[in-house]
Amino acid sequence: MRRGKTFIICGPSGVGKGTVVARLLASDPALYFSVSATTRPPRPGEEDGVHYHFLTRETFQQWVEAGDFLEYAQFVGNYYGTPRLYVDRAMEQGRDVLLDIEIQGAEQVRQKRPETVRIYVAPPSWGELERRLVGRGTEDMEKVRSRLARGREEFAAARDFDYFVINDTVDHAVEEIRAIMLSEHCRPEERMEMIGQ
Amino acid sequence: MRRGKTFIICGPSGVGKGTVVARLLASDPALYFSVSATTRPPRPGEEDGVHYHFLTRETFQQWVEAGDFLEYAQFVGNYYGTPRLYVDRAMEQGRDVLLDIEIQGAEQVRQKRPETVRIYVAPPSWGELERRLVGRGTEDMEKVRSRLARGREEFAAARDFDYFVINDTVDHAVEEIRAIMLSEHCRPEERMEMIGQ
Repeated sequence: MRRGKTFIICGPSGVGKGTVVARLLASDPALYFSVSATTRPPRPGEEDGVHYHFLTRETFQQWVEAGDFLEYAQFVGNYYGTPRLYVDRAMEQGRDVLLDIEIQGAEQVRQKRPETVRIYVAPPSWGELERRLVGRGTEDMEKVRSRLARGREEFAAARDFDYFVINDTVDHAVEEIRAIMLSEHCRPEERMEMIGQ
Repeated sequence: MRRGKTFIICGPSGVGKGTVVARLLASDPALYFSVSATTRPPRPGEEDGVHYHFLTRETFQQWVEAGDFLEYAQFVGNYYGTPRLYVDRAMEQGRDVLLDIEIQGAEQVRQKRPETVRIYVAPPSWGELERRLVGRGTEDMEKVRSRLARGREEFAAARDFDYFVINDTVDHAVEEIRAIMLSEHCRPEERMEMIGQ
């Protein structure tokens, strides 16, 4: 049986990554979406193991020391990380894994596991990203500007990513990511083993 | 407009590459299939520019000296080569190009143009390739054995190819090659230019 592969999905705030990921998961039930661990307390309606793995600071620290995170970071006083165990288990079952993480986390994963495929979801243009962020209507203009500035910085930092997918339409972005996932299973190492030489 | 890319399709005799290429061309009218040049005289029914570009030895030699071939080789006393001009023109028009060439030719193209994507079409197994070659019924067992031996050598030489596609069914092989072609248009260099940063 083929072994699963891990695909990192990064992208700026407002690009519509959540919708793209949801559509990918709906289109392929075998795809495993990695659930993050956090030290942040659960909010009403959040379930352990579904929205997050909720850990105490002590447990989180133990996992860090044991090398049980593929990446982790602190954000507004809480820790967030990608547990290695679930990712490895899914891949051993032959399932591909999606990681929806920040660009700094993507760099940590790349250093540990250079075979991880990194996909950056980009807006069709910066003007379009601004329209989407303003269109949400949830943030004032200063926050929109700060998110845009951060998006541009990340974009520059993502130039060594493996793939760039432009989210002009969700259909189009999903088609491209599915093509990337399929093509990455056509690499010689994996295939030569299948044919047996 | 996006620029086209060149994809090399290699594979052992009997693997069914011709059928796969025909299906790819039928599924995408924009795809350009490179027509080889040769010094071999045309056979009845063969048209210049369709089956081959028929050249005199003098012209072939001039093209070689002018660097007008992406690759060329001698085979049973005649020369065969891939003219650079038509490939470049198609790519400038935004068309992807398919080259159905031998593994030695693939190596010549890689050295000139390392950005060329190399795809090896492999049989599901060596036993299956043997069955297909025998099933053709056009060759004696000695020729079948010699083709199989050459196939295995090529297979080993193809381990640095970008992709391996297994032709278990034509549908499957075509789907994978189309995914590879799409994913190769999601590379950062091409995409960052589109978004403009």
